Parts: sequence; C-alpha cells; structure tokens
Amino acid sequence: MTDLLQSLAVEHPIFQAPMAGGITTSKLVVEVANHGGLGSVGAGYMSADELRKQIREIKQLTSNPFSVNLFIPEEPEHTEEEKQAASRLLQPIREKLNITTTQPNMKLTSNFDEQIRVIIEEKVPICSFTFGLPDSRTINLLKQNDIVAIGTATTVREAQLAEETRLDAVVAQGFEAGGHRGSFTSNAETTPIGLMALLPQIVDQVHIPVIGAGGIMDGRGVAAALALGASAVQMGTAFLMCEESGALDIHRQAIQSSHETATILTNVFSGKYARGISNEFVRRMQGHSEKILHYPLQNTITQPIRKAAKQQKRDEFMSLWSGQSTRLAKQQTVAELMVQLTGKRPSK
Amino acid sequence: MTDLLQSLAVEHPIFQAPMAGGITTSKLVVEVANHGGLGSVGAGYMSADELRKQIREIKQLTSNPFSVNLFIPEEPEHTEEEKQAASRLLQPIREKLNITTTQPNMKLTSNFDEQIRVIIEEKVPICSFTFGLPDSRTINLLKQNDIVAIGTATTVREAQLAEETRLDAVVAQGFEAGGHRGSFTSNAETTPIGLMALLPQIVDQVHIPVIGAGGIMDGRGVAAALALGASAVQMGTAFLMCEESGALDIHRQAIQSSHETATILTNVFSGKYARGISNEFVRRMQGHSEKILHYPLQNTITQPIRKAAKQQKRDEFMSLWSGQSTRLAKQQTVAELMVQLTGKRPSK
Repeated sequence: MTDLLQSLAVEHPIFQAPMAGGITTSKLVVEVANHGGLGSVGAGYMSADELRKQIREIKQLTSNPFSVNLFIPEEPEHTEEEKQAASRLLQPIREKLNITTTQPNMKLTSNFDEQIRVIIEEKVPICSFTFGLPDSRTINLLKQNDIVAIGTATTVREAQLAEETRLDAVVAQGFEAGGHRGSFTSNAETTPIGLMALLPQIVDQVHIPVIGAGGIMDGRGVAAALALGASAVQMGTAFLMCEESGALDIHRQAIQSSHETATILTNVFSGKYARGISNEFVRRMQGHSEKILHYPLQNTITQPIRKAAKQQKRDEFMSLWSGQSTRLAKQQTVAELMVQLTGKRPSK
Repeated sequence: MTDLLQSLAVEHPIFQAPMAGGITTSKLVVEVANHGGLGSVGAGYMSADELRKQIREIKQLTSNPFSVNLFIPEEPEHTEEEKQAASRLLQPIREKLNITTTQPNMKLTSNFDEQIRVIIEEKVPICSFTFGLPDSRTINLLKQNDIVAIGTATTVREAQLAEETRLDAVVAQGFEAGGHRGSFTSNAETTPIGLMALLPQIVDQVHIPVIGAGGIMDGRGVAAALALGASAVQMGTAFLMCEESGALDIHRQAIQSSHETATILTNVFSGKYARGISNEFVRRMQGHSEKILHYPLQNTITQPIRKAAKQQKRDEFMSLWSGQSTRLAKQQTVAELMVQLTGKRPSK
C-alpha cells in the first residue's frame, strides 16, 4: 500500500474516480488533491485543447499530484441502416425535448494520441485508462516521461493483462460501481462480479498494486477494501455528490432519494454498459437492444438528448450514473468527505 | 458484534451457511461448532424425522450451539399443461441419464410446522429462515422457547421486514453468494446487490445484528465484512469445500478449477434463482424461461435428474452451487479453515 502511495506522492489511499462528462471539475480535482487524495480528470470525451486548459487550471490551484483518465479508442462498424434505426428509436424523445437539430456527426475521430501528448507536455504525473489497454508505444512514451499508468479491470484476466501490458497499478472495478464498466475482454462487461469477490481474487493473481472500486462511500468501505488487499480505493458516487463536482443538483437529488435497488446496468446511453438510476430513457430503450449502436456511436447519437435534458433539467432523459450504495450518499464538501474518510484534518 | 455472539454463545463471528441437499453433514456442523463457529443444518428439504435424527446425532458430538435453517413454504399454482411442458423439456436429459421413472410426485406438502416442532422439542438454540419470514405464531413459539431466530435479506427492505417480524438478527446476502438467493420481496431475487454496497446500507437501516454473506472465503473477507458493520459472517462455499461437507468431490473440483466468471444466477434447477457454476444443464434450459416452474415445483421435477447425475458423477447435470470467489476455494478441513479465519487454534 505504502509503495503505491509513495510512488504517487499521495497521502491517503483515496482516489476520486475519473467521471467523464463534466463531473470532474477543476475545483473537484483540486480539492481532492489538496486534502491528500488523488483527484482525477475524466478526460475521455475531451479534445486536446480542453484537456490542456483544464490541466493548466488545476496546476495553478494545487501543487499536489493528480491524474487524467483516457478512454482507449474503438472503431465499431455499423451500416447506414443501423444508424438510421437507432436514430428513429430516439426521435420521440428528441421531440419531447424539442430538439430540432438533425442527426449528429457520426464520424469516428479519436483524440487519444493528442491527449497523450498533452499529458506528457503538461507533465501530468499519473494517467489512467478505461475500456482497454494502451499499446506498447504509448506505454513506452509514458514510461520515458515517468508517468505512472493505471488500468481498469472487471475480471482477474483483465487485471493480468494490465500487468502484462506493464501498467503500474490496476483498478479492480466491482459491479456495484456507478458509471461505465471498464471491461475490455469478451463478455466481461455483462459478467458482473461483486467487489467482495473480485478484489481478493485479483490481489492474489497480480503483483502490481490494486485499487478497489465499487460501492465504497465511507470509511467502512475504505477499511473493507484495504482488508481485502487493496492498496487504495477509488470512489465515484461519493465525490459526484460533493458540491465541488459538476453534477447537476437534480442528479445528486436523484441519487439521494434512491434506494439500493434503483440502479441498473444498461448500455442504452453509450453502447457500453454503465450503472445508473433507471429512468424513462432507460425504460423506453430497454426492449430494443438490437437498435443500440456500439460504443462510441450510441454515445454520439444520444449526446444531443442528454445535453438538452441537462439544460432543461429533465432527469427522466439524463444519464443518472450512480453506484449501488445510494443510501449512503451525502451532499457535502470534499473537505468534509475527506475528513470522514481519513479521520484527519488536511495536513497540507 | 459481541452482543450477537454472546447471545448465541458462539466464540468466533464465523457462521457456516446452511446449505441444503446433503451438504451440511453432522460432521461438518459439529466440526464448525467445536472450533468455535456456528454450524448450521440446511434442513429445508428434510422431513421432520430426518431432521430429528440429525439434530440428535449432532448433540451427541458437540455441546456447543448450532443452528437449523428452514425454508418458508410456498404454494405456487401451475396448470397440468405447464407441468407437462416443464417435464417434456427435461425428457432428453432424463434419457441421457437413463432415468426411466415417470414424473415425480408434484403434490405440495410442507414439513414446516413439524420441522419447527422438532427444533423446539430438541431444544436447538438457533433457527434461521430462508425465502421469507415466519408468521407471528411461529415467532411466538420460538420466543417462548428461547430460540434465537435469524432471517435472510437480499435488500434493505427485506432486512427491515425481518426486524419488524421480530427476528433477532438478519443475514445480508450479497449477490456474490453461492446457492439460493434468500429473497422474498417482489423483484429482489433478480435485483443483484453486491455485499460491499448491501451490508453497510442494511447495517444503517436496522437495529438488529447483521451477518454478512457473499463471496467471503478467508480472513480478508471476514475482516472486510466486520469493517462494513457486520456482527459476523456467513460462509457457504468455503465450508462446502471442506472435506467434512457432503459435497461430491466432482463438485469441489468443479469449483476449484473455475474462474471467478464461471458462476451465474439461474432458476432452472429449483424455480428460484441460485448461483452456481454454469454447465450443460443450465445452458440447455436457459432459453426456456417460460417452461420453468415456480419453486418448489421445478425443484421437485428436476430432483430425479440431480440425484441420478450425482450417482453417476456427471457434473454436467448437477447443481454446482458456488459463490463468486472460486479462485479462493481450497480443499481443506474445517479445523484448517477455522485456524486460517481466526488465527487461533481451537480453545474448546
């Protein structure tokens, strides 16, 4: 445990999960870093310029380390007919939100290489990956620049592959976790393994440090994950609930008013399975699995809907990502959460 | 924690899960009890006479407390056509196993009241329940006889109902757990909640002691569950693997050679969802959910197949119950497991 935290120069074994889509504001990342945790920018959907801007903003506000998370790019193939069918399925929802724009640009363009270049140029000390493993050229670049690389695994096999790829640590993501599953091997996305079972089995099978994620909301979860052999924990929903996050109030309220049975794993928003609170969008789409495009095309095609729903504060059409520990959710500041998690006032 | 263990007169917070179908031999229960854990007889399918015989056998071999688990009876309705369709679906498997007997007796008879009477007459100190809650008459009988009553919950609501029913403690069963889910409220059976999320949420919402179950195989899992607020843990697969259990060697071998992704929740064996290693029986039946009878009728109709498969040692047609921590499974004795879990040589 100490090894990982020492190599990261992070005080507490508390990592704020990299949540994409505007949740990880600079303020959130900075507050976590300044309280001795590891803040992380969810940069999966960001352009290189946006990423550079946020990194510079964060560096202005903290001298502590932080990390950036990237999505490994994918290039699914779909026929024009399939895209049209997916679009038609969404049309009634677009009408409810008064979206009059035509179909979004479905061209696949990956920012990945430029994102990596920005991370290196801006000397971000830690970079994590979701939905796959970086290629050896990328790994070599990161190693040459002393950047710590962290992967995400939802099975033992994925953790072993992360180690074989020479990543420095791996997040063991239990199926309790909110947001996207980081799976990248066949069937793993829909093979749900609880953190209580996943974590010790991964710890036993790899030599790199393991970070436990999924359902952890307070000091009890931190202690439990460390007991299971984790070197640190990664928490998403607990930080999303913090007032410094970019989550909308209606998103926080939806979580706080939910029961532990309210979340489901669904691929209807992005084409990849993610855990969130079930709502009208999910229920409307659930019976139409054959019309859900692969990631990232489904994400692209639903993006105008999610954006309009946010602007109009209509949570029935938003992606309300949340882990399974909704009853433990508290609206508080990062400072309050970190004190609760560590039992310590900030030392820095 | 101390309160629960003191009231049960049990030394260690280690409960052996009550596994039905011959797994919980007297030797298994006695060894657990003699090493300071709580052994438990899975008596769900037993007649009153069988139960009395086993209780007397156990009392001969230990003076320590142990418990008996009962299933809350159910009376599903099916038409003769539905029963015939379910039976026809199984016919090719019966042929593979050379089962020539006609359809088993599908009459529903519950032993529950007689089982309760045996438990009271034999002064079994602890009684646990699965698939529901005992009625107030039963609760009153148990209380009059100073028998501690423990329920099983897979959601917060079920734990609250257990408390309202005046049960003395409740097992929080995470979806990692092997064997049957103890669910008894609408949709809970198929609403999987990981123990890392379920346990602290139940602990926060009830005042009775909570026992954590699901995926726990070793001292790390015990420490994690206690950190999450459990008063004790309940472990199934770890005790099933012990040589004192009634599991067949091919069942133990199937678990030990499995990966953490090998188990699934399926209702094809009994009509209720249970976690086990996927095999040919499961795969043959999975596409035919409309022909699966409700519990306990599906259990009755598949019983000859499971029995013949065991006798012929054909694990492709057995119910290979297992939790998700298959990679942590070890063939050992109860004494070895208890020493590993508690760090102590037996004191009794």
